[in-house]
Amino acid sequence: MSAINDAKKAAAHKAVNEYVKNGFKVGVGSGSTIVFAIDRLAERVHKEKLNIVCVPTSFQSRQLLIKNQLTVGELEIYPQLDVCIDGADEVDSNLNLIKGGGGCLLEEKIVASCAKVFVIIADYTKNSEKLGDKYKKGIPIEVVPMAYKPVKQVIESRFGGDLELRMAIAKAGPVVTDNGNFILDWRNFKQDVDWDIINKDILQIPGVVESGLFIGMAQKVYFGLEDGTVKEQDK
Amino acid sequence: MSAINDAKKAAAHKAVNEYVKNGFKVGVGSGSTIVFAIDRLAERVHKEKLNIVCVPTSFQSRQLLIKNQLTVGELEIYPQLDVCIDGADEVDSNLNLIKGGGGCLLEEKIVASCAKVFVIIADYTKNSEKLGDKYKKGIPIEVVPMAYKPVKQVIESRFGGDLELRMAIAKAGPVVTDNGNFILDWRNFKQDVDWDIINKDILQIPGVVESGLFIGMAQKVYFGLEDGTVKEQDK
Repeated sequence: MSAINDAKKAAAHKAVNEYVKNGFKVGVGSGSTIVFAIDRLAERVHKEKLNIVCVPTSFQSRQLLIKNQLTVGELEIYPQLDVCIDGADEVDSNLNLIKGGGGCLLEEKIVASCAKVFVIIADYTKNSEKLGDKYKKGIPIEVVPMAYKPVKQVIESRFGGDLELRMAIAKAGPVVTDNGNFILDWRNFKQDVDWDIINKDILQIPGVVESGLFIGMAQKVYFGLEDGTVKEQDK
Repeated sequence: MSAINDAKKAAAHKAVNEYVKNGFKVGVGSGSTIVFAIDRLAERVHKEKLNIVCVPTSFQSRQLLIKNQLTVGELEIYPQLDVCIDGADEVDSNLNLIKGGGGCLLEEKIVASCAKVFVIIADYTKNSEKLGDKYKKGIPIEVVPMAYKPVKQVIESRFGGDLELRMAIAKAGPVVTDNGNFILDWRNFKQDVDWDIINKDILQIPGVVESGLFIGMAQKVYFGLEDGTVKEQDK
């Protein structure tokens, strides 16, 4: 296994070991790091006979939960979760995040917002000083399809940078999210800004459904390092 | 025709007469009052040979535009509109609105936000001092289906009142909007509040797509009165 996968696995296992307890309702994120968390969840549930319910944040994580015979729940039944464990595309020094490279930012943010504790697992390449230092694919903004053009123009003229409609690869046309929306990827943005204010302003724009900026939400990050150890960072 | 329909018609005709000019891109709202505006638009376009493009805010207004042989446009082609004319469920003394009784609040707000001027047409029953004085069906909040339960709980615990999932009549289950979302109707809310702040807070909640609070958006309201005259109010 590569160093980066070792790092993901180490972070995922430590988070699941330390934050999941018997009886918990657990939000389960999406992405490549979450695969290791679900492996470890399944291991613990089957070995320790844990009685937990997992609320997925995407089609991907739902399928992985089912495959691992974990109990799948939903927010309609469990609107309050004990913990949510998810990955991130980038984590800055204040534990603010960019998420949504995999297009699941909306469900991820909804599920995270329902959890008492939001824990991030990531490899060392995601650890940066400022958002945009390392992650170059941009901040995803999920928009109602009819509004993608005006939203793009409003954000570019108000905050600068460039927004590009994310295009699909396995079909002609744009990526359509699990909720039927489009994604604008915002690049070349200014980095020395108050992301809390900008995020609030963006969410006001009619047609914006959600942003991939997770500001002040994560309480704890486990970074898997190149040497196989895990660095913890608290809010 | 009833006094209330006379009032709607008078307001709609005056707004279309005064705000629509040749060459304009016009946002066209939804609801019972808009029917009179589209009638008058069609009359002017065909009689005066006006060359205008209309961007609808719903399936309903799109169908009415097509039926009246008006040119239908969309925001992808015309992200900036000269004017948007729409109805409202309630208009307070500061020209803040409740909209979305017909479930089209999301597209209505998107289209209104793209217009240089946002003009409201309404009958006298919509004119109130404070939001909630006259309109009793509640403030609609459009939500992603998976989030309706947590959003309901968060708003009730944070701001008070009751939110109820809007149920469909011609099918079993909830109303699904033109964009595939659910609607929570918020009743028994406190009236002496700063709606601008509350609206911003609500839009931050993950899973909220849009609210039916249109704060600081309308520049002009035409109220059709019982005696057939029209009262104008500017921001």
